[in-house]
Amino acid sequence: MNPLLDVLLVLATLIYSYLEAFVKLFVPVKRKSVSGELVLITGAGHGVGRATAFEFAKRHSRLVLWDINKVKKEIGDVSILVNNAGVITAADLLSTQDHQVERMFEVNILAHIWTTRAFLPAMMNNNYGHIVTVASAAGHFVTSFMVAYCSSKFAAVGFHKALTEELSTLGKDGIKTTCLCPVFINTGFVKNPSTRLGKILEVEEVVEALMEGILTNQKMVFVPSVQRVALLLEKLFPERALAVLKKMTDVKFDAVTGQRSAQ
Amino acid sequence: MNPLLDVLLVLATLIYSYLEAFVKLFVPVKRKSVSGELVLITGAGHGVGRATAFEFAKRHSRLVLWDINKVKKEIGDVSILVNNAGVITAADLLSTQDHQVERMFEVNILAHIWTTRAFLPAMMNNNYGHIVTVASAAGHFVTSFMVAYCSSKFAAVGFHKALTEELSTLGKDGIKTTCLCPVFINTGFVKNPSTRLGKILEVEEVVEALMEGILTNQKMVFVPSVQRVALLLEKLFPERALAVLKKMTDVKFDAVTGQRSAQ
Repeated sequence: MNPLLDVLLVLATLIYSYLEAFVKLFVPVKRKSVSGELVLITGAGHGVGRATAFEFAKRHSRLVLWDINKVKKEIGDVSILVNNAGVITAADLLSTQDHQVERMFEVNILAHIWTTRAFLPAMMNNNYGHIVTVASAAGHFVTSFMVAYCSSKFAAVGFHKALTEELSTLGKDGIKTTCLCPVFINTGFVKNPSTRLGKILEVEEVVEALMEGILTNQKMVFVPSVQRVALLLEKLFPERALAVLKKMTDVKFDAVTGQRSAQ
Repeated sequence: MNPLLDVLLVLATLIYSYLEAFVKLFVPVKRKSVSGELVLITGAGHGVGRATAFEFAKRHSRLVLWDINKVKKEIGDVSILVNNAGVITAADLLSTQDHQVERMFEVNILAHIWTTRAFLPAMMNNNYGHIVTVASAAGHFVTSFMVAYCSSKFAAVGFHKALTEELSTLGKDGIKTTCLCPVFINTGFVKNPSTRLGKILEVEEVVEALMEGILTNQKMVFVPSVQRVALLLEKLFPERALAVLKKMTDVKFDAVTGQRSAQ
């Protein structure tokens, strides 16, 4: 192909995509049913994982719930809520180690890669499934004093993107992917967080956005969605202007206390 | 502060930054001297690390060279080239493990975080130093069949960005950071790579760009630099147009053979 044809093809695709997006504004969004679907949730013992388990339970999915710690009694109740739920505690999923950096990567991304790797072959055979990667705004925007955390969340975003690309290359269009990127959530992971731009998120609103994202097959769920604009500005603005903007958002917290102590 | 003042401040910073960038086009770039400086290079036994060691040797830096494998005889010659070079082999820096994903993360990012953590306190005390993170184009753009690699390179980019941000917050402006992001390099890591956009890089041109980036304190070194435009387009264009563009670049390779077998 010659370069002129390439440019024309890109332009035609651009026009088609924008027209399609415009038309879609007036078409009601379809939400898929997850009733009877098998749903595995890691980190189901607390925070977003726990609340998500309840949402799938309400929609009559069959649940498999994992957590490093034992999944607590309240989550056990989910299995009462739906008869066909199985509750598995995987206390040994992650070995305990002293090294904090390794642990951060294990909790945030290595365990997720291993889990995905374990279940992907069956999904590929059936060309059916949905893989949700829980990342963070910290997977796109960095914050001081969270270097290892940011790094591991960048890894989670990279994993989601690369997996999505590979599934597309392999023509496995029946396997959907969603990546969740919320800003600070009020789960006790960070102590006394505050920012001038918008409030700290509650678990409920994050899970609401996540469920909408899953049921409508969105690839990237930003909570709040204004992060998309910030990502664009980051590429457009010079460094100094970004530093001024960053100072204005005034992200602050007292300490990273970790999920463990928050339970 | 009120929002109107905020907007004015951002606008003023934007105009100032663009004017400054324009003026700088006509000012010769300053390159710092690295003569006599202590330079630690991990992965110094092959590819980019090895070529970079030679560049610093030419500029009379004191070298400390690390690699998982023993640093080979040719690199030993560097210590002959400059009298004050010390050559340390760190065969035990990384434990050998079967698990490929862990190993990918160890080689690409965990070892780098540990090394940085070990040397950062001394740099902080002196407010002096330069930390180079070797990432990849794969830390910004994903490619099929390299999921764990992309994920670990995203982590490397996130580490560099978060570290840079933290040093800035702490006022340690004497510690510089550089992140290297080349596309495929002809080192044997990937077998028979090819792409329609531009040729596969030779080690020499990557190291030339890296040295220029270090000596002029550039934060992000893209090789080739057109990646910056691609990053912007990625945020601006709809998914379908990006898919067409990606297909045009036609990135192909036969297999990921790994650095080990390439030596």
